[in-house]
Formats: sequence, structure tokens, C-alpha cells
Amino acid sequence: MKEIRIDSITNDVVVFATDRSKRPVDKMRIQGEEKVTDKYKAECPFCRYNKISTSEETFKIEGEDGWLVKSLYNKFPIVDNVSNGIYGIHEVMIDTYRHEGSFYDMDEREYENLFTMYIHRYNELIKDNKIKYVSIFKNYLRKAGASLAHPHSQIISLSVIPPEINNEVTIAKEYYNKNHKSLYAEIIENEIRLNERVVYNGEYFLVFIPYATKYNGEIRIFFKENITFEELNRNKIKELSYIAEKLFKAIYDIEGDTPFNLCIHTHPKNIESKEYFNVHIHIIPRKYSFGGFELGNGIYVSSTKPEDLAKKLRF
Amino acid sequence: MKEIRIDSITNDVVVFATDRSKRPVDKMRIQGEEKVTDKYKAECPFCRYNKISTSEETFKIEGEDGWLVKSLYNKFPIVDNVSNGIYGIHEVMIDTYRHEGSFYDMDEREYENLFTMYIHRYNELIKDNKIKYVSIFKNYLRKAGASLAHPHSQIISLSVIPPEINNEVTIAKEYYNKNHKSLYAEIIENEIRLNERVVYNGEYFLVFIPYATKYNGEIRIFFKENITFEELNRNKIKELSYIAEKLFKAIYDIEGDTPFNLCIHTHPKNIESKEYFNVHIHIIPRKYSFGGFELGNGIYVSSTKPEDLAKKLRF
Repeated sequence: MKEIRIDSITNDVVVFATDRSKRPVDKMRIQGEEKVTDKYKAECPFCRYNKISTSEETFKIEGEDGWLVKSLYNKFPIVDNVSNGIYGIHEVMIDTYRHEGSFYDMDEREYENLFTMYIHRYNELIKDNKIKYVSIFKNYLRKAGASLAHPHSQIISLSVIPPEINNEVTIAKEYYNKNHKSLYAEIIENEIRLNERVVYNGEYFLVFIPYATKYNGEIRIFFKENITFEELNRNKIKELSYIAEKLFKAIYDIEGDTPFNLCIHTHPKNIESKEYFNVHIHIIPRKYSFGGFELGNGIYVSSTKPEDLAKKLRF
Repeated sequence: MKEIRIDSITNDVVVFATDRSKRPVDKMRIQGEEKVTDKYKAECPFCRYNKISTSEETFKIEGEDGWLVKSLYNKFPIVDNVSNGIYGIHEVMIDTYRHEGSFYDMDEREYENLFTMYIHRYNELIKDNKIKYVSIFKNYLRKAGASLAHPHSQIISLSVIPPEINNEVTIAKEYYNKNHKSLYAEIIENEIRLNERVVYNGEYFLVFIPYATKYNGEIRIFFKENITFEELNRNKIKELSYIAEKLFKAIYDIEGDTPFNLCIHTHPKNIESKEYFNVHIHIIPRKYSFGGFELGNGIYVSSTKPEDLAKKLRF
């Protein structure tokens, strides 16, 4: 049986066709990406001590033997502060000094440093008067858009509100005006009550597999409170770090070293959306490729039952 | 310099950052897909004479030694005629009996058979009263969503108008209402006059690289006339076949055996959109992967100058 589902926070249209996962697949074409094992690489621009072709640092946290995390200007920015039509700053945030490290093997302590850097850079970049939105994201492995192996995240400030954020905020606002309740609060309540798609229900965060999403196997982390990203304090960072370590280890246990994107969706600046829009994180597996059906029609096919995936990842 | 461009037929937002193509890329992670060389495979469900696990045929064109192209029901359909929320028929169209064949080596005569089959199946599936749209597309190589190697296209009839079609038709209608001119006619006129992004200017079709598109290196084929897909007659199929042979050979000369999607956008049934919406084909290279910036923000980064690509492909 096929079923149409709508992702309530984006309005994406998804066809559930769970038997599609039984399709035959030609074996010869399966390919993986090589696992990085070097702890240090002389030619890597992001490794400790290497000075080759790196740009100016903007932040770092020092450990006993050198920096643990640091951020620097992107040498090949998507946006810059000299162009007309679009303005912004593009920085790279190095997740860990360990060249072979990844989200799949980082511990809570390393995540705390990383998220502390996220907040610091966010607070710095959002200050600029010309900026309307600051986007934090991560690409892991080539299939997810990464061009360099050393684990890193990215932050980009923008003089425009991105269409995807605009879409989510508009949907949330319309829901709020119509129902006098926050869509995000409703989803959090429903998911906790139902308790079938929840991966982890924490004090400050809810981790769950959405009822419908265009990306097969997407995981969402919702901030439970009506707070902005800037209000992420020490205690909250601690819980988020606990979640990140547990969650990525659970993904690794099922999928191995699999490509993914992480995208943080925060409030656009100067728009009063706190009451109806919650900060949240999309974790998007990139094992699958969209085909012409998805690209041509904007209808997405899912063969993953959210309840099954939630059960496997639960901690 | 960075520049924001809008794709006028979809409203997609594109940042032009052409120097991004100079980014360093870790060599170790580059991977290709294995080239298919077998002319026949006993275990392939789409090869001539093989009866294994194939479903009922719906159409074929016979040659001297057996069928040249044929269509059959998809054994693992995205939609079916028994489910409630969404209804439709999903067929596979085998591009050629040659297992090792591809769009990169098919000749005009083979394309004529293929496009004749496209039209035949389209005309058949569009008849159903419950159907609002028929989608034709093709996935080439795993990275573009293909699960089987034998070259094939797909056709799906749908009881809903797909969001992407709805978006394009709405934009075209608004343009028409506002400017009393067809957006598609304007683009065709402009591109021919400018003659910098044109790949081939035929009697019935214009092949060009759009001013802006979310997909790096996308090629578009516009029907020049205000006709529906059903009105594609013998002469037009001949020109389209000539174009397909020349175009895919030109792509192969630059990129080699590279993954792509082909999506045909036709008129939705029962909506009078002929006057302002032209049938067109998107050819989308899938060498590149979107990263978290694109997925999270809905802003797309392009490093390909359309004029440069058009020059290389021109015939």
C-alpha cells in the first residue's frame, strides 16, 4: 500500500512505499568512500601546526598540547563582504584537531567544545546590522558535499533570509494564527505522548524520526523551549553533547561510516518568531540519491518506517 | 565576486561564486562507477529473451532479431491502482535491448524508437479519468538514483499535480497575467537574440544552458511551439532524436560516462496552460552533490558559467 504524507513543518509531499526497499539492485555499482585513518596529514590545511594555505583564525579553544577546536575564514567563500547582491561571512569551524576524527567517534567533551564554538561564532556573526540570518551546517563525506576530509563544520552569515527558513517560519506562523497554538509545541507533545518515533526525550531536547520527511531516515532534534540559539547555555550544551555522542554512535552501529548533513535552523533576525518557531536540527543521511522522479516532480519517496528507525536508534 | 540570480521558471535562488571551482579537494575520495560492458546479461530482467522476474509488457517495437524497445509494469511501483491517498500506474521503458547501451552511445534511429514509446505510453496513461499528470523521467547511474544497469526510462501517471509542476505553472501564469506575454516565449526570444547560452537552435526545439539553475550544469530543451506533449509528431520526434544523439555525445566528450537525470515537464491535464507554459526537458548532471548549505537553506551555489558550458556543447 502507498500512502501520501505531508511533512508538517515544511509541507514536503512524501509517498510512503515501504516495499520499494525490496527492489533488486545491481551489485557491481555499489561503492563506498575510503575511511580516513591518518591522525595527522602534512598537506591538510586544517591539521595542527600546519600553516599551508590557511586563512585568518577567528576563534579557538586551547588544550594542553595545542588547540582543540578552531574557526577560520573560508578561503573559497560562498558569500563575501565585497559583492553587491548578497553579503555575508563564511567561516570554517574545525570540529577537532584529530584529522581522522568524525562525529561517529567524538566524545561528549569534544562535542562541548564544538558546540561552544558554534555559539561563539553565531553570536559574533549575527551582530552585523546587514545580516538577517546565520546558517550553521556540516557536510560529512564527499556524497554529502564535503571537499576536505579533516572533520569540519561551516557557518555563513547572510543578508537575506534563506527560502527554506522563510518557508518553515511562514508555515509555523500560519499554523499559529489559525490554531492559537505553536506547531512545534504540538509536535513535541504528540511525539512524547505517542512515544513511537522518539529516539531520546531529554530535559531540553527531543530527538525523533519525523512522521514524514523528504529525506529517507532523517533525524530531527527540537529545542523544547521557546529560546533562540544564542540562549543555549552551559547546561543545554551539556545535554546536546550527550545526545550527539549517543546518537552518532547509534547511527554508526547501524550504518557504519555513512555520509550525512547536519543543518541547524534558527530564528531569522528581526522577525518575532520565538512564540511559534523552535530552533531545531536536521540530520540528513546521504546514503540515498534522489532520482528524476523526486527532482522532476518535487514528490519524495520514502521506504523507511519512522517507527522502525526510532526503535533501532533509541537510547 | 558573488551574484544572486533567480531561475525565472522556478524562482530558485542561486549564488554565482565561480571561483569556488578552484577549491582544493582531497584526492583520495574521488570515486567513479564501473562502466557496463556486457552486451547481454543472463540475470538482467530487462535483457532480450530473459523471462526472469519481469512483469507484463505494455508496448514494444520489433526489429529483425527481436524487440528494440519495450515497456512493462514496474514490479516495485512508487504508486499503484489499489492504494487510497494516491493513485497511478508506474511503468519501466527499456531504452534499448542493448544491455551495455546508454544515452551516450545511442544513435538517432534508436532515439526515434525510444521517443515513439514515450509518446505512446504517455497517450495511454493520460486517458484515465482519475489521472491529473503523467511524469516521464530517466535516472542514469547509481548516483542519479538508478538501481539497475540496463538502460531504461520511467513513466508514472499520478492522481495529483506534482508540486514542482504546480510551481512552474503558477509562476508562468502569474507572468502571463502581469505581462500579457508568455514567459517561455520571452526566454526563447531572448536566448536566440543573445546567442551566448544557446547549444542548438532547431526548427521545433531550443537547447540552452539557463541563466540560473539550482543544478550546476543543467541543460534545458524547450519546445518552441505552444503544443502539448501528445502533439509531438514524426517530424518533431526526428529533430528531437537528432538533438539527443548530438547533445549526449557532446556531454560525453567533456564529462565521460557521467550520471544524469532527464525530466520531461508537460502540461497538467484539465488546466488550460498551453498559452503560457511550454513543454520542456530538464537534463540534470549528477556529478555534484548538494551540501548542507543547499539542503538547509534552499539557496544553491553555482560555479559553472552558462556561457562557457554552452560554448563547449554547441553543435
